[in-house]
Amino acid sequence: MVRVRVPASIANFGPGFDCIGTAVNLYNFIEMEFSDIPKIEVSGEGKGKISLGEDNLVYRAASTILKKVNIEKKLYIRLKNEIPLARGLGSSAACIAGGMIAANLLLGSPFSREEIINFATEMEGHPDNVVAAILGGFTISVKVNDRVLYKKLSMPPDLKFVVAIPEFELKTERARQVIPKNVSLEDAVFNIGRIALLVAGISERDLSVLQVATQDVLHQPYRMSLVPGLEEILEKAPKMGMLGCFLSGAGPSVVGVVLEEKSKETGEFMVGVFKEKGIKSQYVILESCNDGTIIT
Amino acid sequence: MVRVRVPASIANFGPGFDCIGTAVNLYNFIEMEFSDIPKIEVSGEGKGKISLGEDNLVYRAASTILKKVNIEKKLYIRLKNEIPLARGLGSSAACIAGGMIAANLLLGSPFSREEIINFATEMEGHPDNVVAAILGGFTISVKVNDRVLYKKLSMPPDLKFVVAIPEFELKTERARQVIPKNVSLEDAVFNIGRIALLVAGISERDLSVLQVATQDVLHQPYRMSLVPGLEEILEKAPKMGMLGCFLSGAGPSVVGVVLEEKSKETGEFMVGVFKEKGIKSQYVILESCNDGTIIT
Repeated sequence: MVRVRVPASIANFGPGFDCIGTAVNLYNFIEMEFSDIPKIEVSGEGKGKISLGEDNLVYRAASTILKKVNIEKKLYIRLKNEIPLARGLGSSAACIAGGMIAANLLLGSPFSREEIINFATEMEGHPDNVVAAILGGFTISVKVNDRVLYKKLSMPPDLKFVVAIPEFELKTERARQVIPKNVSLEDAVFNIGRIALLVAGISERDLSVLQVATQDVLHQPYRMSLVPGLEEILEKAPKMGMLGCFLSGAGPSVVGVVLEEKSKETGEFMVGVFKEKGIKSQYVILESCNDGTIIT
Repeated sequence: MVRVRVPASIANFGPGFDCIGTAVNLYNFIEMEFSDIPKIEVSGEGKGKISLGEDNLVYRAASTILKKVNIEKKLYIRLKNEIPLARGLGSSAACIAGGMIAANLLLGSPFSREEIINFATEMEGHPDNVVAAILGGFTISVKVNDRVLYKKLSMPPDLKFVVAIPEFELKTERARQVIPKNVSLEDAVFNIGRIALLVAGISERDLSVLQVATQDVLHQPYRMSLVPGLEEILEKAPKMGMLGCFLSGAGPSVVGVVLEEKSKETGEFMVGVFKEKGIKSQYVILESCNDGTIIT
Protein backbone atom coordinates (compact mmCIF):
# COMPACT_ATOMS: atom_id res chain seq x y z
CA MET A 1 0.00 0.00 0.00
CA VAL A 2 1.24 3.48 -0.81
CA ARG A 3 0.01 6.80 0.43
CA VAL A 4 0.79 10.13 -1.18
CA ARG A 5 -0.13 13.71 -0.48
CA VAL A 6 -0.62 16.00 -3.45
CA PRO A 7 -1.12 19.76 -3.19
CA ALA A 8 -3.67 22.06 -4.76
CA SER A 9 -2.26 24.49 -7.28
CA ILE A 10 -2.97 27.95 -8.57
CA ALA A 11 -2.37 27.89 -12.31
CA ASN A 12 -2.54 30.74 -14.82
CA PHE A 13 -0.74 32.61 -12.10
CA GLY A 14 -1.25 36.29 -13.00
CA PRO A 15 0.00 36.75 -16.57
CA GLY A 16 1.24 33.15 -16.70
CA PHE A 17 -1.56 31.69 -18.80
CA ASP A 18 -0.94 27.98 -19.35
CA CYS A 19 2.60 28.11 -17.95
CA ILE A 20 2.90 29.31 -14.35
CA GLY A 21 1.59 27.36 -11.39
CA THR A 22 2.04 27.53 -7.65
CA ALA A 23 1.43 24.70 -5.22
CA VAL A 24 -0.47 25.64 -2.06
CA ASN A 25 -1.05 23.90 1.25
CA LEU A 26 -4.42 22.31 0.58
CA TYR A 27 -4.09 18.62 -0.13
CA ASN A 28 -5.60 15.45 -1.49
CA PHE A 29 -4.40 12.23 0.13
CA ILE A 30 -4.38 9.08 -1.95
CA GLU A 31 -3.97 5.57 -0.61
CA MET A 32 -3.56 2.88 -3.20
CA GLU A 33 -3.02 -0.85 -3.27
CA PHE A 34 -3.57 -3.74 -5.65
CA SER A 35 -6.90 -5.47 -5.32
CA ASP A 36 -8.93 -8.28 -6.89
CA ILE A 37 -11.75 -5.93 -7.73
CA PRO A 38 -11.66 -2.21 -8.42
CA LYS A 39 -12.74 -0.30 -5.35
CA ILE A 40 -12.74 3.42 -4.55
CA GLU A 41 -13.61 5.21 -1.35
CA VAL A 42 -13.92 8.96 -1.06
CA SER A 43 -14.05 11.25 1.92
CA GLY A 44 -13.96 15.03 2.01
CA GLU A 45 -14.41 17.10 -1.15
CA GLY A 46 -16.32 15.32 -3.90
CA LYS A 47 -17.76 12.64 -1.63
CA GLY A 48 -21.03 11.40 -3.09
CA LYS A 49 -20.25 13.22 -6.31
CA ILE A 50 -17.20 11.78 -7.94
CA SER A 51 -17.33 8.40 -9.60
CA LEU A 52 -16.45 5.30 -7.61
CA GLY A 53 -15.99 3.28 -10.77
CA GLU A 54 -13.03 2.70 -13.04
CA ASP A 55 -13.77 6.02 -14.74
CA ASN A 56 -12.72 7.83 -11.56
CA LEU A 57 -9.95 10.24 -12.50
CA VAL A 58 -7.42 8.95 -9.97
CA TYR A 59 -8.19 5.41 -11.05
CA ARG A 60 -7.79 6.29 -14.71
CA ALA A 61 -4.52 8.09 -14.08
CA ALA A 62 -3.19 5.14 -12.11
CA SER A 63 -4.36 2.68 -14.77
CA THR A 64 -2.50 4.65 -17.43
CA ILE A 65 0.71 3.94 -15.55
CA LEU A 66 -0.12 0.25 -15.03
CA LYS A 67 -0.90 -0.14 -18.72
CA LYS A 68 2.45 1.31 -19.70
CA VAL A 69 4.17 -1.63 -18.03
CA ASN A 70 1.47 -4.10 -19.09
CA ILE A 71 0.16 -4.74 -15.60
CA GLU A 72 -3.53 -5.62 -15.61
CA LYS A 73 -4.21 -5.60 -11.88
CA LYS A 74 -7.13 -3.80 -10.29
CA LEU A 75 -6.77 -1.18 -7.57
CA TYR A 76 -8.24 -0.29 -4.25
CA ILE A 77 -8.02 3.49 -3.84
CA ARG A 78 -8.95 5.57 -0.83
CA LEU A 79 -9.22 9.31 -1.38
CA LYS A 80 -9.31 11.95 1.28
CA ASN A 81 -9.80 15.24 -0.53
CA GLU A 82 -9.32 18.76 0.68
CA ILE A 83 -9.20 20.35 -2.78
CA PRO A 84 -12.62 21.50 -3.97
CA LEU A 85 -13.67 20.32 -7.43
CA ALA A 86 -13.80 22.53 -10.50
CA ARG A 87 -13.01 25.74 -8.68
CA GLY A 88 -9.66 26.54 -10.25
CA LEU A 89 -7.47 24.95 -7.60
CA GLY A 90 -6.10 22.12 -9.66
CA SER A 91 -8.18 19.27 -8.29
CA SER A 92 -8.06 17.34 -11.57
CA ALA A 93 -4.31 17.87 -11.84
CA ALA A 94 -3.95 16.63 -8.25
CA CYS A 95 -5.98 13.52 -9.07
CA ILE A 96 -3.96 12.83 -12.20
CA ALA A 97 -0.55 13.60 -10.69
CA GLY A 98 -1.33 11.84 -7.41
CA GLY A 99 -2.86 8.82 -9.12
CA MET A 100 0.12 8.42 -11.42
CA ILE A 101 2.73 8.92 -8.71
CA ALA A 102 0.97 6.48 -6.37
CA ALA A 103 0.72 3.87 -9.12
CA ASN A 104 4.36 4.40 -10.07
CA LEU A 105 5.34 3.86 -6.44
CA LEU A 106 3.21 0.70 -6.23
CA LEU A 107 5.11 -0.63 -9.22
CA GLY A 108 8.50 0.13 -7.71
CA SER A 109 8.98 3.42 -9.56
CA PRO A 110 9.68 2.29 -13.13
CA PHE A 111 9.15 5.86 -14.31
CA SER A 112 11.17 8.99 -13.57
CA ARG A 113 9.64 12.19 -12.33
CA GLU A 114 10.20 13.68 -15.78
CA GLU A 115 8.21 10.87 -17.37
CA ILE A 116 5.37 11.23 -14.88
CA ILE A 117 5.26 14.97 -15.61
CA ASN A 118 4.93 14.24 -19.30
CA PHE A 119 2.27 11.55 -18.83
CA ALA A 120 0.28 13.76 -16.48
CA THR A 121 0.49 16.76 -18.80
CA GLU A 122 -0.73 14.65 -21.68
CA MET A 123 -3.75 13.53 -19.67
CA GLU A 124 -4.50 16.98 -18.24
CA GLY A 125 -3.93 18.83 -21.51
CA HIS A 126 -1.79 21.62 -20.06
CA PRO A 127 1.24 21.47 -17.81
CA ASP A 128 0.89 24.31 -15.32
CA ASN A 129 -1.20 22.59 -12.65
CA VAL A 130 0.40 19.16 -12.87
CA VAL A 131 3.95 20.47 -12.72
CA ALA A 132 3.15 22.57 -9.65
CA ALA A 133 1.31 19.63 -8.04
CA ILE A 134 4.23 17.28 -8.66
CA LEU A 135 7.15 19.60 -7.86
CA GLY A 136 5.66 22.15 -5.46
CA GLY A 137 6.79 25.78 -5.33
CA PHE A 138 6.43 28.29 -8.14
CA THR A 139 6.76 26.44 -11.42
CA ILE A 140 7.27 27.45 -15.02
CA SER A 141 6.29 24.87 -17.63
CA VAL A 142 6.66 24.97 -21.35
CA LYS A 143 5.51 22.35 -23.80
CA VAL A 144 8.26 21.58 -26.27
CA ASN A 145 6.86 19.17 -28.84
CA ASP A 146 5.49 16.36 -26.70
CA ARG A 147 7.58 17.04 -23.66
CA VAL A 148 7.46 19.55 -20.84
CA LEU A 149 10.44 21.71 -19.98
CA TYR A 150 10.04 23.07 -16.49
CA LYS A 151 11.77 25.07 -13.84
CA LYS A 152 10.89 25.41 -10.20
CA LEU A 153 11.51 28.48 -8.06
CA SER A 154 10.61 28.77 -4.43
CA MET A 155 7.96 31.27 -3.46
CA PRO A 156 8.86 34.11 -1.06
CA PRO A 157 7.74 32.60 2.27
CA ASP A 158 5.99 35.70 3.57
CA LEU A 159 3.31 35.64 0.88
CA LYS A 160 -0.17 34.44 1.70
CA PHE A 161 -2.66 33.37 -0.92
CA VAL A 162 -6.16 34.27 0.09
CA VAL A 163 -8.48 32.28 -2.13
CA ALA A 164 -12.15 33.14 -2.36
CA ILE A 165 -13.97 30.04 -3.53
CA PRO A 166 -17.45 30.63 -4.94
CA GLU A 167 -20.02 27.91 -4.42
CA PHE A 168 -20.51 27.24 -8.11
CA GLU A 169 -18.35 25.04 -10.26
CA LEU A 170 -16.70 26.13 -13.50
CA LYS A 171 -15.33 23.44 -15.75
CA THR A 172 -12.04 24.33 -17.38
CA GLU A 173 -13.49 23.30 -20.73
CA ARG A 174 -16.28 25.86 -20.46
CA ALA A 175 -13.88 28.51 -19.22
CA ARG A 176 -11.67 27.87 -22.26
CA GLN A 177 -14.48 28.35 -24.73
CA VAL A 178 -14.86 32.04 -23.93
CA ILE A 179 -11.23 32.86 -24.73
CA PRO A 180 -10.65 34.03 -28.29
CA LYS A 181 -8.20 32.10 -30.43
CA ASN A 182 -6.48 35.30 -31.50
CA VAL A 183 -5.23 38.18 -29.44
CA SER A 184 -3.71 41.52 -30.29
CA LEU A 185 0.07 41.69 -30.35
CA GLU A 186 -0.27 44.49 -27.84
CA ASP A 187 -2.07 42.20 -25.38
CA ALA A 188 0.53 39.49 -25.92
CA VAL A 189 3.29 42.00 -25.13
CA PHE A 190 1.33 43.11 -22.05
CA ASN A 191 1.51 39.61 -20.60
CA ILE A 192 5.04 38.93 -21.84
CA GLY A 193 6.50 41.93 -20.05
CA ARG A 194 4.55 41.23 -16.90
CA ILE A 195 5.47 37.57 -16.68
CA ALA A 196 9.13 38.53 -17.06
CA LEU A 197 8.72 40.97 -14.15
CA LEU A 198 6.85 38.34 -12.15
CA VAL A 199 9.54 35.70 -12.49
CA ALA A 200 12.27 38.25 -11.71
CA GLY A 201 10.29 39.48 -8.71
CA ILE A 202 9.76 35.96 -7.33
CA SER A 203 13.31 34.89 -8.01
CA GLU A 204 14.86 38.01 -6.50
CA ARG A 205 12.32 38.36 -3.69
CA ASP A 206 11.22 41.79 -4.89
CA LEU A 207 7.56 42.09 -3.95
CA SER A 208 7.36 45.71 -5.15
CA VAL A 209 6.76 44.61 -8.74
CA LEU A 210 3.93 42.18 -7.97
CA GLN A 211 1.09 44.65 -8.39
CA VAL A 212 1.92 45.15 -12.06
CA ALA A 213 3.55 41.76 -12.52
CA THR A 214 0.37 39.83 -11.72
CA GLN A 215 -1.81 41.62 -14.27
CA ASP A 216 -3.27 39.72 -17.20
CA VAL A 217 -5.21 40.59 -20.31
CA LEU A 218 -5.17 37.25 -22.08
CA HIS A 219 -7.82 35.28 -20.21
CA GLN A 220 -9.30 37.19 -17.29
CA PRO A 221 -11.18 39.85 -19.29
CA TYR A 222 -13.03 37.13 -21.18
CA ARG A 223 -13.85 35.14 -18.08
CA MET A 224 -15.44 38.03 -16.24
CA SER A 225 -18.80 37.05 -17.70
CA LEU A 226 -18.43 33.61 -16.09
CA VAL A 227 -17.36 34.92 -12.70
CA PRO A 228 -19.62 37.76 -11.53
CA GLY A 229 -17.71 39.87 -9.04
CA LEU A 230 -14.27 39.22 -10.56
CA GLU A 231 -14.13 42.58 -12.31
CA GLU A 232 -14.91 44.49 -9.14
CA ILE A 233 -12.47 42.46 -7.04
CA LEU A 234 -9.63 43.03 -9.52
CA GLU A 235 -10.40 46.72 -9.73
CA LYS A 236 -10.42 47.27 -5.98
CA ALA A 237 -7.58 44.92 -5.09
CA PRO A 238 -4.75 47.51 -5.07
CA LYS A 239 -6.76 49.85 -2.84
CA MET A 240 -7.47 46.94 -0.51
CA GLY A 241 -3.76 46.52 -0.04
CA MET A 242 -3.34 43.33 -2.02
CA LEU A 243 0.05 42.83 -3.67
CA GLY A 244 -1.67 41.09 -6.54
CA CYS A 245 -5.03 39.62 -7.45
CA PHE A 246 -6.13 37.25 -10.20
CA LEU A 247 -8.27 34.32 -11.18
CA SER A 248 -7.03 30.99 -9.86
CA GLY A 249 -6.62 28.68 -12.82
CA ALA A 250 -9.68 28.92 -15.03
CA GLY A 251 -11.70 30.18 -12.04
CA PRO A 252 -14.10 30.67 -10.47
CA SER A 253 -11.84 31.07 -7.43
CA VAL A 254 -10.04 34.37 -7.06
CA VAL A 255 -6.63 34.74 -5.40
CA GLY A 256 -5.44 37.72 -3.43
CA VAL A 257 -1.69 37.74 -2.86
CA VAL A 258 -1.05 39.49 0.44
CA LEU A 259 1.14 39.76 3.47
CA GLU A 260 -0.18 38.07 6.59
CA GLU A 261 -1.72 41.19 8.14
CA LYS A 262 -3.97 41.75 5.16
CA SER A 263 -5.16 38.18 4.77
CA LYS A 264 -8.41 38.20 6.78
CA GLU A 265 -9.51 41.56 5.46
CA THR A 266 -8.82 40.41 1.90
CA GLY A 267 -10.85 37.24 2.32
CA GLU A 268 -13.79 39.10 3.80
CA PHE A 269 -13.69 41.70 1.06
CA MET A 270 -13.77 39.12 -1.72
CA VAL A 271 -16.53 37.08 -0.10
CA GLY A 272 -18.44 40.35 0.36
CA VAL A 273 -18.21 41.24 -3.32
CA PHE A 274 -19.39 37.78 -4.34
CA LYS A 275 -22.28 38.10 -1.89
CA GLU A 276 -23.36 41.38 -3.48
CA LYS A 277 -23.59 39.49 -6.77
CA GLY A 278 -25.76 36.86 -5.10
CA ILE A 279 -22.96 34.29 -4.99
CA LYS A 280 -22.15 32.35 -1.87
CA SER A 281 -18.45 31.84 -1.31
CA GLN A 282 -15.92 31.11 1.38
CA TYR A 283 -12.30 32.04 1.68
CA VAL A 284 -9.23 30.13 2.74
CA ILE A 285 -5.84 31.57 3.62
CA LEU A 286 -3.18 29.45 1.97
CA GLU A 287 0.58 29.38 1.79
CA SER A 288 2.94 28.18 -0.85
CA CYS A 289 3.77 24.49 -0.60
CA ASN A 290 7.35 23.88 -1.61
CA ASP A 291 7.10 20.10 -1.46
CA GLY A 292 5.01 18.86 -4.35
CA THR A 293 3.67 15.34 -4.19
CA ILE A 294 5.23 13.38 -1.34
CA ILE A 295 4.89 9.96 0.24
CA THR A 296 3.22 10.21 3.62
CA MET B 1 31.85 69.72 -20.35
CA VAL B 2 30.49 66.26 -19.65
CA ARG B 3 31.43 62.97 -21.22
CA VAL B 4 29.35 59.81 -21.04
CA ARG B 5 29.69 56.32 -22.36
CA VAL B 6 26.52 54.54 -23.41
CA PRO B 7 26.38 50.88 -24.39
CA ALA B 8 24.79 49.13 -27.35
CA SER B 9 21.86 46.91 -26.50
CA ILE B 10 20.24 43.77 -27.77
CA ALA B 11 16.49 44.25 -27.49
CA ASN B 12 13.68 41.80 -28.25
CA PHE B 13 15.97 39.38 -26.49
CA GLY B 14 14.67 35.94 -27.55
CA PRO B 15 10.98 35.82 -26.68
CA GLY B 16 11.14 39.23 -24.98
CA PHE B 17 9.55 41.27 -27.73
CA ASP B 18 9.41 44.93 -26.66
CA CYS B 19 10.40 44.18 -23.07
CA ILE B 20 13.78 42.48 -22.64
CA GLY B 21 17.07 44.16 -23.44
CA THR B 22 20.68 43.43 -22.69
CA ALA B 23 23.50 45.95 -22.71
CA VAL B 24 26.69 44.86 -24.46
CA ASN B 25 30.24 46.17 -24.53
CA LEU B 26 30.11 48.26 -27.68
CA TYR B 27 29.83 51.94 -26.92
CA ASN B 28 29.03 55.42 -28.09
CA PHE B 29 30.90 58.23 -26.35
CA ILE B 30 29.24 61.59 -26.07
CA GLU B 31 30.96 64.83 -25.08
CA MET B 32 28.66 67.77 -24.51
CA GLU B 33 29.01 71.38 -23.49
CA PHE B 34 27.07 74.61 -23.83
CA SER B 35 27.93 76.67 -26.87
CA ASP B 36 26.93 79.89 -28.63
CA ILE B 37 26.10 78.05 -31.80
CA PRO B 38 24.94 74.46 -32.28
CA LYS B 39 27.85 72.29 -33.32
CA ILE B 40 28.18 68.55 -33.77
CA GLU B 41 31.22 66.46 -34.60
CA VAL B 42 31.07 62.76 -35.40
CA SER B 43 33.74 60.12 -35.59
CA GLY B 44 33.36 56.40 -36.00
CA GLU B 45 30.04 54.85 -37.00
CA GLY B 46 27.72 57.19 -38.86
CA LYS B 47 30.44 59.71 -39.74
CA GLY B 48 29.45 61.53 -42.91
CA LYS B 49 25.98 60.08 -42.66
CA ILE B 50 24.26 61.33 -39.59
CA SER B 51 23.05 64.90 -39.38
CA LEU B 52 25.31 67.58 -37.94
CA GLY B 53 22.38 69.93 -37.47
CA GLU B 54 19.93 70.44 -34.67
CA ASP B 55 17.89 67.49 -35.97
CA ASN B 56 20.72 65.17 -34.94
CA LEU B 57 19.23 62.57 -32.60
CA VAL B 58 21.63 63.18 -29.72
CA TYR B 59 21.08 66.92 -30.10
CA ARG B 60 17.31 66.49 -30.12
CA ALA B 61 17.38 64.23 -27.07
CA ALA B 62 19.57 66.70 -25.19
CA SER B 63 17.36 69.62 -26.25
CA THR B 64 14.32 67.82 -24.89
CA ILE B 65 15.93 67.88 -21.47
CA LEU B 66 16.97 71.51 -21.75
CA LYS B 67 13.45 72.50 -22.77
CA LYS B 68 11.97 70.80 -19.74
CA VAL B 69 13.80 73.25 -17.51
CA ASN B 70 13.33 76.16 -19.95
CA ILE B 71 16.99 76.48 -20.84
CA GLU B 72 17.46 77.79 -24.37
CA LYS B 73 21.20 77.35 -24.72
CA LYS B 74 22.86 75.73 -27.71
CA LEU B 75 25.16 72.74 -27.50
CA TYR B 76 28.49 71.59 -28.81
CA ILE B 77 28.41 67.81 -29.07
CA ARG B 78 31.23 65.46 -30.01
CA LEU B 79 30.25 61.90 -30.84
CA LYS B 80 32.56 58.94 -31.04
CA ASN B 81 30.41 56.03 -32.14
CA GLU B 82 31.12 52.33 -32.04
CA ILE B 83 27.50 51.23 -32.43
CA PRO B 84 26.53 50.67 -36.07
CA LEU B 85 23.37 52.41 -37.24
CA ALA B 86 20.06 50.68 -37.90
CA ARG B 87 21.41 47.18 -37.40
CA GLY B 88 19.41 46.20 -34.33
CA LEU B 89 22.01 47.15 -31.74
CA GLY B 90 20.18 50.03 -30.18
CA SER B 91 22.10 52.90 -31.73
CA SER B 92 19.10 55.23 -31.61
CA ALA B 93 18.38 54.30 -28.00
CA ALA B 94 22.04 54.97 -27.18
CA CYS B 95 21.81 58.39 -28.84
CA ILE B 96 18.61 59.24 -26.99
CA ALA B 97 19.66 57.87 -23.60
CA GLY B 98 23.19 59.23 -23.88
CA GLY B 99 22.03 62.63 -25.13
CA MET B 100 19.51 62.96 -22.32
CA ILE B 101 21.85 61.80 -19.59
CA ALA B 102 24.64 64.08 -20.79
CA ALA B 103 22.26 67.07 -20.92
CA ASN B 104 20.92 66.22 -17.48
CA LEU B 105 24.47 66.15 -16.13
CA LEU B 106 25.27 69.48 -17.80
CA LEU B 107 22.30 70.94 -15.97
CA GLY B 108 23.37 69.59 -12.61
CA SER B 109 21.09 66.54 -12.72
CA PRO B 110 17.64 68.05 -12.19
CA PHE B 111 16.06 64.77 -13.31
CA SER B 112 16.22 61.35 -11.67
CA ARG B 113 17.20 58.20 -13.50
CA GLU B 114 13.55 57.14 -13.45
CA GLU B 115 12.52 60.35 -15.15
CA ILE B 116 15.23 60.01 -17.79
CA ILE B 117 14.06 56.46 -18.48
CA ASN B 118 10.53 57.72 -19.00
CA PHE B 119 11.60 60.61 -21.23
CA ALA B 120 13.85 58.37 -23.30
CA THR B 121 11.17 55.71 -23.69
CA GLU B 122 8.70 58.32 -24.84
CA MET B 123 11.13 59.53 -27.49
CA GLU B 124 12.20 56.04 -28.60
CA GLY B 125 8.67 54.58 -28.56
CA HIS B 126 9.56 51.39 -26.72
CA PRO B 127 11.49 50.87 -23.50
CA ASP B 128 13.63 47.77 -24.03
CA ASN B 129 16.68 49.37 -25.63
CA VAL B 130 16.73 52.57 -23.61
CA VAL B 131 16.36 50.82 -20.27
CA ALA B 132 19.22 48.46 -21.10
CA ALA B 133 21.35 51.35 -22.38
CA ILE B 134 20.75 53.39 -19.23
CA LEU B 135 20.96 50.62 -16.60
CA GLY B 136 23.15 47.99 -18.22
CA GLY B 137 22.72 44.26 -17.57
CA PHE B 138 19.68 42.21 -18.51
CA THR B 139 16.63 44.43 -18.20
CA ILE B 140 12.91 43.87 -18.13
CA SER B 141 10.76 46.87 -18.96
CA VAL B 142 7.02 47.22 -18.92
CA LYS B 143 5.04 50.28 -19.90
CA VAL B 144 2.41 51.03 -17.29
CA ASN B 145 0.30 53.90 -18.55
CA ASP B 146 2.91 56.55 -19.36
CA ARG B 147 5.63 55.22 -17.12
CA VAL B 148 8.12 52.38 -17.35
CA LEU B 149 8.39 49.79 -14.63
CA TYR B 150 11.72 48.02 -14.93
CA LYS B 151 13.91 45.48 -13.27
CA LYS B 152 17.56 44.76 -13.89
CA LEU B 153 19.23 41.39 -13.52
CA SER B 154 22.87 40.72 -14.14
CA MET B 155 23.79 38.45 -17.00
CA PRO B 156 25.72 35.23 -16.30
CA PRO B 157 29.29 36.42 -16.92
CA ASP B 158 30.36 33.40 -18.96
CA LEU B 159 28.01 34.15 -21.83
CA LYS B 160 29.30 35.66 -25.04
CA PHE B 161 27.10 37.37 -27.57
CA VAL B 162 28.33 36.78 -31.06
CA VAL B 163 26.61 39.31 -33.26
CA ALA B 164 26.64 38.94 -37.02
CA ILE B 165 26.05 42.39 -38.50
CA PRO B 166 24.93 42.42 -42.14
CA GLU B 167 26.04 45.33 -44.26
CA PHE B 168 22.52 46.53 -44.97
CA GLU B 169 20.44 48.74 -42.71
CA LEU B 170 16.96 47.90 -41.51
CA LYS B 171 14.94 50.68 -39.98
CA THR B 172 12.87 49.61 -36.98
CA GLU B 173 9.85 51.26 -38.55
CA ARG B 174 10.06 49.06 -41.63
CA ALA B 175 10.73 45.97 -39.51
CA ARG B 176 7.59 46.74 -37.49
CA GLN B 177 5.38 46.96 -40.55
CA VAL B 178 5.74 43.27 -41.34
CA ILE B 179 4.50 42.10 -37.94
CA PRO B 180 0.77 41.36 -37.84
CA LYS B 181 -1.34 43.26 -35.32
CA ASN B 182 -2.96 40.05 -34.12
CA VAL B 183 -1.40 36.77 -33.11
CA SER B 184 -2.81 33.43 -32.12
CA LEU B 185 -3.27 32.79 -28.41
CA GLU B 186 -1.08 29.75 -28.93
CA ASP B 187 1.79 31.89 -30.19
CA ALA B 188 1.35 34.31 -27.30
CA VAL B 189 1.54 31.39 -24.86
CA PHE B 190 4.64 30.14 -26.68
CA ASN B 191 6.49 33.36 -25.91
CA ILE B 192 4.99 33.77 -22.43
CA GLY B 193 6.24 30.39 -21.24
CA ARG B 194 9.62 30.91 -22.82
CA ILE B 195 10.20 34.35 -21.40
CA ALA B 196 9.36 33.01 -17.95
CA LEU B 197 11.96 30.28 -18.45
CA LEU B 198 14.46 32.83 -19.78
CA VAL B 199 14.17 35.13 -16.78
CA ALA B 200 14.35 32.19 -14.37
CA GLY B 201 17.37 30.81 -16.24
CA ILE B 202 19.21 34.15 -16.17
CA SER B 203 18.32 34.86 -12.57
CA GLU B 204 19.28 31.40 -11.34
CA ARG B 205 22.26 31.00 -13.67
CA ASP B 206 20.75 27.92 -15.33
CA LEU B 207 22.03 27.94 -18.90
CA SER B 208 20.42 24.58 -19.69
CA VAL B 209 17.07 26.21 -20.42
CA LEU B 210 18.40 28.85 -22.82
CA GLN B 211 17.96 26.83 -25.99
CA VAL B 212 14.20 26.72 -25.56
CA ALA B 213 13.99 29.91 -23.52
CA THR B 214 15.34 32.09 -26.34
CA GLN B 215 12.82 30.94 -28.95
CA ASP B 216 10.31 33.39 -30.38
CA VAL B 217 7.32 33.18 -32.67
CA LEU B 218 5.98 36.71 -32.33
CA HIS B 219 8.32 38.70 -34.52
CA GLN B 220 11.12 36.61 -36.00
CA PRO B 221 9.01 34.50 -38.39
CA TYR B 222 7.66 37.66 -40.00
CA ARG B 223 11.04 39.29 -40.28
CA MET B 224 12.66 36.40 -42.10
CA SER B 225 11.68 37.98 -45.40
CA LEU B 226 13.65 41.09 -44.43
CA VAL B 227 16.74 39.21 -43.27
CA PRO B 228 17.76 36.54 -45.80
CA GLY B 229 19.77 33.89 -43.95
CA LEU B 230 18.02 34.33 -40.62
CA GLU B 231 15.86 31.25 -41.06
CA GLU B 232 18.83 29.04 -41.83
CA ILE B 233 20.91 30.45 -38.98
CA LEU B 234 18.12 29.87 -36.46
CA GLU B 235 17.53 26.38 -37.73
CA LYS B 236 21.16 25.31 -37.52
CA ALA B 237 22.05 27.18 -34.31
CA PRO B 238 21.48 24.29 -31.88
CA LYS B 239 23.57 21.92 -33.99
CA MET B 240 26.31 24.55 -34.11
CA GLY B 241 26.46 24.44 -30.33
CA MET B 242 24.85 27.80 -29.66
CA LEU B 243 22.96 28.10 -26.39
CA GLY B 244 20.51 30.41 -28.10
CA CYS B 245 20.12 32.39 -31.30
CA PHE B 246 17.81 35.23 -32.27
CA LEU B 247 17.40 38.49 -34.09
CA SER B 248 18.99 41.43 -32.32
CA GLY B 249 16.32 44.06 -31.83
CA ALA B 250 14.43 44.48 -35.07
CA GLY B 251 17.39 43.10 -36.99
CA PRO B 252 19.12 42.70 -39.31
CA SER B 253 21.86 41.63 -36.87
CA VAL B 254 21.64 38.10 -35.51
CA VAL B 255 22.91 37.11 -32.05
CA GLY B 256 24.35 33.78 -31.10
CA VAL B 257 24.56 33.21 -27.36
CA VAL B 258 27.53 30.96 -26.69
CA LEU B 259 30.27 30.02 -24.30
CA GLU B 260 33.70 31.40 -25.12
CA GLU B 261 35.00 28.34 -26.94
CA LYS B 262 32.21 28.46 -29.50
CA SER B 263 32.37 32.17 -30.22
CA LYS B 264 34.67 32.27 -33.23
CA GLU B 265 33.06 29.28 -34.91
CA THR B 266 29.63 30.82 -34.37
CA GLY B 267 30.62 34.12 -35.91
CA GLU B 268 32.16 32.45 -38.94
CA PHE B 269 29.12 30.24 -39.40
CA MET B 270 26.70 33.17 -39.38
CA VAL B 271 28.83 35.30 -41.70
CA GLY B 272 29.08 32.25 -43.98
CA VAL B 273 25.30 31.85 -44.18
CA PHE B 274 24.84 35.53 -44.97
CA LYS B 275 27.49 35.23 -47.64
CA GLU B 276 25.64 32.36 -49.29
CA LYS B 277 22.63 34.68 -49.53
CA GLY B 278 24.82 37.30 -51.18
CA ILE B 279 24.98 39.48 -48.07
CA LYS B 280 28.22 40.89 -46.76
CA SER B 281 28.48 40.84 -42.99
CA GLN B 282 30.97 40.89 -40.17
CA TYR B 283 30.79 39.50 -36.70
CA VAL B 284 31.77 40.86 -33.31
CA ILE B 285 32.12 38.92 -30.08
CA LEU B 286 30.49 40.90 -27.32
CA GLU B 287 29.95 40.53 -23.61
CA SER B 288 27.25 41.76 -21.33
CA CYS B 289 27.87 45.25 -19.99
CA ASN B 290 26.57 45.55 -16.47
CA ASP B 291 27.22 49.28 -16.18
CA GLY B 292 24.74 51.15 -18.31
CA THR B 293 25.47 54.76 -19.15
CA ILE B 294 28.34 56.10 -17.11
CA ILE B 295 30.35 59.29 -16.84
CA THR B 296 33.83 58.79 -18.24
